[in-house]
Amino acid sequence: MTANIDKLYNSVNEKGHVCVGLDTCADYVPPAQRIKDNDPQSVLAFNKALIDATFDIAACYKVQIAYYEEMGTAGLCAYSETLKYIRAKNCLVIADIKRGDIADTAARYAKAHFSGDFQADFVTLNPYMGMDSIDPWFKEAQTTGKGAFVLMRTSNPGMRDFEYLELKNGKRLYHEVGEKISRLADHHKGESGYGLFGVVTGCTESEEAAEIREKYSNLFFLIPGYGAQGGAASDAALLLRNGNGGVVNASRSIITAWQKEDGGKNADNAFAASCARRAAVKMRDDILSEVKTGKK
Amino acid sequence: MTANIDKLYNSVNEKGHVCVGLDTCADYVPPAQRIKDNDPQSVLAFNKALIDATFDIAACYKVQIAYYEEMGTAGLCAYSETLKYIRAKNCLVIADIKRGDIADTAARYAKAHFSGDFQADFVTLNPYMGMDSIDPWFKEAQTTGKGAFVLMRTSNPGMRDFEYLELKNGKRLYHEVGEKISRLADHHKGESGYGLFGVVTGCTESEEAAEIREKYSNLFFLIPGYGAQGGAASDAALLLRNGNGGVVNASRSIITAWQKEDGGKNADNAFAASCARRAAVKMRDDILSEVKTGKK
Repeated sequence: MTANIDKLYNSVNEKGHVCVGLDTCADYVPPAQRIKDNDPQSVLAFNKALIDATFDIAACYKVQIAYYEEMGTAGLCAYSETLKYIRAKNCLVIADIKRGDIADTAARYAKAHFSGDFQADFVTLNPYMGMDSIDPWFKEAQTTGKGAFVLMRTSNPGMRDFEYLELKNGKRLYHEVGEKISRLADHHKGESGYGLFGVVTGCTESEEAAEIREKYSNLFFLIPGYGAQGGAASDAALLLRNGNGGVVNASRSIITAWQKEDGGKNADNAFAASCARRAAVKMRDDILSEVKTGKK
Repeated sequence: MTANIDKLYNSVNEKGHVCVGLDTCADYVPPAQRIKDNDPQSVLAFNKALIDATFDIAACYKVQIAYYEEMGTAGLCAYSETLKYIRAKNCLVIADIKRGDIADTAARYAKAHFSGDFQADFVTLNPYMGMDSIDPWFKEAQTTGKGAFVLMRTSNPGMRDFEYLELKNGKRLYHEVGEKISRLADHHKGESGYGLFGVVTGCTESEEAAEIREKYSNLFFLIPGYGAQGGAASDAALLLRNGNGGVVNASRSIITAWQKEDGGKNADNAFAASCARRAAVKMRDDILSEVKTGKK
């Protein structure tokens, strides 16, 4: 069994570092294609068009479940169908669910998102409650090859409220998280040298990026903050390692690229998908160019 | 508009402190009532029997969404129906979803769980990413009267991994969370004197309980850890204030009480519900007795 982290590593080698974020709210669907307001079926059709247009250049996809939960039970059916569509294309999908709960509950969540209707290849996890909220997922991952990215140092301004606080031992909280995940990841590494579980580390603040990348050499990074959130290709590249070791997520700057190109007047899904592809290709090339320049 | 936190305060005065946890996995349904394995409809019917048997003595309910997510899209329909059934009884329900995400995404989650198919009266939130993951919920709460309990000091052993760490400023991380939520809660208090948002603080470790209760006089507490997790009525009572100020959650010790009474041989939903009622009444009385003794 090839672990998903190795599949992701290979995917980055083949296709570059772009993780296409399908944080698709109904307002992002071109008006001509909206069956009705806030309609999950329109969102699903739009997602399929986006996936068809990008699957050969996306290292993976990330689907933010909040946008689907907002549409209720029908929204979660569209979420489920989106995951299935991506996986049927032999592409990898990260379920951006940021779950964090303990013991029995964590095991339930792991079953919910590593199998069945909501099966994904990776999930995102929140570590606040402690390692007993992470361990049940890791146990499940070791038998299934699934993976996870644990929130370490995120890309939002509020990151400074808790993640960034300095502890009595001199470390910042996010390093305490990173070190514990790094030790966990050492228990089960893939052939690529990366552990089954990695961490989320944003590219909006670059001053610590080199230190973070060096310190966690066994952790694959899910890197948010690119594009709409302010991070540049050069910032993201600082978090890569030997040209691999991370995927860079962008959502709005790819899936709403069509809004800038025709002002939203006549766009349909095919037009929006072609705009998304152009945006993703440019992002891929910008990052690859930085990697070559900086020999990252 | 009466804020939900005031409704909860009044409910505690009328019915006591028990929060019945409907963390209902399919295995908890009496075998005689299981339509098929892992069946959401059986879980829903069991939940309805439990609610019918406890609504006059439960201050509120807490529904752990993980158990429903595990059953996929049909499970989430059963989750939605459970919330609707509780609310139709004029009872309050806490959606135990522990969501935590930023800005736009948090606003989406707030819509998902404060309205529509998954409408609850309160939610649980995870603060790791910072206050910009809490604020969008609070904004929504101020116009709708909804509430939330933010994870502060939870009842699991892993609590010591991060929540309990000592910061450079001498405080433990969970107090940094508590103080920020306390300041937020001051912006909008109900008539009861409690802010719209409270915190989760477990009753498995009693040594700091009195200090915590005194420090956060404007915060209502959701108190896990009772029963199956080891917390006693006396531990829980330490976290109450003037006989109110908190609800104490129990799940397994109530909803699986039937397993101890007939060994699971011939139980049906009606029998299981009557066992659940007895367990909930005993728990209510045990806590009330401690409150009177300790004048909490």
